[in-house]
Amino acid sequence: MAKTNPGRFFEDYKLGEVIHHAVPRTVSGGERALYHALYPARHALYSSDEFARASGLPGSPIDDLAAFHVVFGKTVPDISLNAVANLGYAEGRWLKPVYPGDTLRSTSEVIGLKQNSNGKSGVVYVRTRGLNQLDEVVMDYVRWVMVRKSNLDAPAPETVIPELKDTLSADDLLIPEGLDFSGYDFTLAGEPHRWGDYEVGEVIDHVDGVTIEEAEHMIATRLWQNTAKVHFDATFRPDGQRLIYGGHVISMARALSFNGLANAQMIVGLNGGAHANPCFTGLTVKAWSEVLDKAETAAPGVGAIRLRLVATSDGSVGELKGEDGKYLPGVLLDLDYWALMPM
Amino acid sequence: MAKTNPGRFFEDYKLGEVIHHAVPRTVSGGERALYHALYPARHALYSSDEFARASGLPGSPIDDLAAFHVVFGKTVPDISLNAVANLGYAEGRWLKPVYPGDTLRSTSEVIGLKQNSNGKSGVVYVRTRGLNQLDEVVMDYVRWVMVRKSNLDAPAPETVIPELKDTLSADDLLIPEGLDFSGYDFTLAGEPHRWGDYEVGEVIDHVDGVTIEEAEHMIATRLWQNTAKVHFDATFRPDGQRLIYGGHVISMARALSFNGLANAQMIVGLNGGAHANPCFTGLTVKAWSEVLDKAETAAPGVGAIRLRLVATSDGSVGELKGEDGKYLPGVLLDLDYWALMPM
Amino acid sequence: MAKTNPGRFFEDYKLGEVIHHAVPRTVSGGERALYHALYPARHALYSSDEFARASGLPGSPIDDLAAFHVVFGKTVPDISLNAVANLGYAEGRWLKPVYPGDTLRSTSEVIGLKQNSNGKSGVVYVRTRGLNQLDEVVMDYVRWVMVRKSNLDAPAPETVIPELKDTLSADDLLIPEGLDFSGYDFTLAGEPHRWGDYEVGEVIDHVDGVTIEEAEHMIATRLWQNTAKVHFDATFRPDGQRLIYGGHVISMARALSFNGLANAQMIVGLNGGAHANPCFTGLTVKAWSEVLDKAETAAPGVGAIRLRLVATSDGSVGELKGEDGKYLPGVLLDLDYWALMPM
Repeated sequence: MAKTNPGRFFEDYKLGEVIHHAVPRTVSGGERALYHALYPARHALYSSDEFARASGLPGSPIDDLAAFHVVFGKTVPDISLNAVANLGYAEGRWLKPVYPGDTLRSTSEVIGLKQNSNGKSGVVYVRTRGLNQLDEVVMDYVRWVMVRKSNLDAPAPETVIPELKDTLSADDLLIPEGLDFSGYDFTLAGEPHRWGDYEVGEVIDHVDGVTIEEAEHMIATRLWQNTAKVHFDATFRPDGQRLIYGGHVISMARALSFNGLANAQMIVGLNGGAHANPCFTGLTVKAWSEVLDKAETAAPGVGAIRLRLVATSDGSVGELKGEDGKYLPGVLLDLDYWALMPM
Repeated sequence: MAKTNPGRFFEDYKLGEVIHHAVPRTVSGGERALYHALYPARHALYSSDEFARASGLPGSPIDDLAAFHVVFGKTVPDISLNAVANLGYAEGRWLKPVYPGDTLRSTSEVIGLKQNSNGKSGVVYVRTRGLNQLDEVVMDYVRWVMVRKSNLDAPAPETVIPELKDTLSADDLLIPEGLDFSGYDFTLAGEPHRWGDYEVGEVIDHVDGVTIEEAEHMIATRLWQNTAKVHFDATFRPDGQRLIYGGHVISMARALSFNGLANAQMIVGLNGGAHANPCFTGLTVKAWSEVLDKAETAAPGVGAIRLRLVATSDGSVGELKGEDGKYLPGVLLDLDYWALMPM
Repeated sequence: MAKTNPGRFFEDYKLGEVIHHAVPRTVSGGERALYHALYPARHALYSSDEFARASGLPGSPIDDLAAFHVVFGKTVPDISLNAVANLGYAEGRWLKPVYPGDTLRSTSEVIGLKQNSNGKSGVVYVRTRGLNQLDEVVMDYVRWVMVRKSNLDAPAPETVIPELKDTLSADDLLIPEGLDFSGYDFTLAGEPHRWGDYEVGEVIDHVDGVTIEEAEHMIATRLWQNTAKVHFDATFRPDGQRLIYGGHVISMARALSFNGLANAQMIVGLNGGAHANPCFTGLTVKAWSEVLDKAETAAPGVGAIRLRLVATSDGSVGELKGEDGKYLPGVLLDLDYWALMPM
């Protein structure tokens, strides 16, 4: 048993350490097809090589969230195997589209540590980078998790809490090289609504719903080589339920958001996110969005739109938290991101 | 909510109008692998590049029904979102094989309209065309659906019912360029029966069965970007059942028909089809076929065979309708198509 | 019904006969992606083209077990359709990696026959070969199955039981051309344990588990074009259960063995295997391994390790058979194979 990975405990993380995560992954048209099979994904830039070329890209990239899941999945054995809770995300940026044939790997730098007052666990902050075969950073993001201590006698590290932006500004976003929406085909994309048609504060009910199946979330989660037991092993939790990977809910909600946000094509920034309540099989995921901000960009015809994406299990729209400041029980996900949209 | 697609109602269709459907799709080896994973598909021409090349094609195409599903799926948001019933198909032709790397889009021309006497709905006839990235038509077919009216005061359009062929004649079929079965390898294909071995009126029991799973039909239906709520959302119907996309049953039955029709390689014509009874998870789909007609073609070694393909949920064989002229409850699908077979 | 495949019965096999199995199959990135989606597969050589190239290969091959399943699946209609039991495997060798774009077919030579004393069935021994589009043998293995007689009056054939090696020696193994582990990156591969760190007799608990789903095992089994009814048709068995393809359990256990055997990269030999107990949906598969032997090879930095891989449904570790010599009820699979590992 000494050869299996016990995961890291809170006392194993050192500030400034860079962890090189295992198992690089080459993606292909197979991953793209599976993404479309697992989620009702219809954004044209990720569905059609021709549409992507007409937008100035060399071809249709792998969905931004698929790239995120691949990068994220690699970190699980080193970061979250003994995690008690996934506390937050910040400063996520997509820096380069990922294309079929690219090989991704991940690294995480420990940028913050704070032992909890109970002495039994602590919070670890990491900045994770996804790199391609040319060692270019394709995305990076900050994540913090609560991790158990194994040796309760291990001394507490110096508390360092990184300064993180509440939200990325439009200037922080990187527009993919060559992206040009000046000849954008709204008919092929599926909706006529352009950047100028959305108002800050506007709430969009995406209407459609998908009921969660065990086979589907496990297929998805394995595809990203995320091997956390709790997603796969019905004997792991006392209630016999498999907890669904939060990323599965993110992708489901984002795909559902096509209906009303068909032109929010590329995700370029992740400001924050909370898995508000756990998701289990049999729940029906629906989604709504709120426009949080808008910004112009230097790329031709390309605007940026900041969106709150909320996944629910009860079909509620526009409600997020109760009077106690806690997420309502029907809220599964509260995600804050920047997307690019034709102006 | 103003930004989500409410779908079209009967009064929104105008005779002669051409609707350009959204979300073009590039297919790859991923879609091919998924088709083989979702259906027990074994026709050699769609399984092996080498077999396809030996038959005069540049490589193995995407299954004809996969191409149909991609083309069909795009029409759902514009044609059948508010449809009460899918009434029929006619004059379906596969005009060009679809290969990995091709990008498909769809258009539908309104060719007929007839308001129902109750004034609450009407029948819309469309001729749908699938086009590739070179704007070549890869397939076309006529479909008619019953659609609700939203504004009951909207005036009834002039009634136009298109003249449709009961069945395509062999002359209507297009044989893929270069197709040559003169060196056909029956051993590799899996069965010795050639065109000359089948007799009109012959009934073939395909013996095998597959039990339907929620995860599988949803994966398939999403893969074709068909996002009709009723297939995905268990809260949509009062009985909590998800209705299975009729195309899932078509593909299942066609794949099962390999056992007895292994050499009915390419589908080139769709004369008609009825989804006789709804299909739900847990049913076990079996299939039988009846030889309806045969014809020679100009291509070397290539014969055409017209088949009735019937999917059942009760394993019955050879029975279709009761004394009342209605489909028996165990019949799921009654499809009439032309395939190409070595002579 | 005369046109469907009734399968072969014991009296239909002739010693020395070579059966050419139907339906060649071209594999692509789609099959690779699906393999990663269906199993928690993380061996770096099969996940990353870059890692494979750094190991002297032209790219990342299709998983060795995926190649096995494709080759095996083709034999089912001719070998095991009327089989009462799959009795054993021997002398399995992987001779050439299979890459996306390769087209596989299979042949089986009848190398042994023995009618049972009851006169109602007999044992058939075949050596199956998988060939690529260049007619190179990519793998071969011996399998023996018990098959029913259809005509009980058919005379018993001369009994011939082939001489089979209990286990392949290291000299019998073929190392893929160019394979070189001298620059092996243990960090990217996921574990630091090299060939020298494993001791004969050592038992490794792979810890993780995956609960079996109907949709998943059917997707996998169809992907390999294995169409045995019992895996797909819930009406086939009196108890309404679908029996899970033994190969699904093999791949699940092998993928789970990553945790502790991440560097046992390539499978090159199959010494034997038993599907100890049937597997059904809802069971949670876990795995443990025992190091049976070790050998050096001529390839740079490459060692061979002989492993027993055991899949269980009860999480037991290290226990295989009861006092009666029979497999314990919680054992699903007992597989004996050779893998290649960095020294």
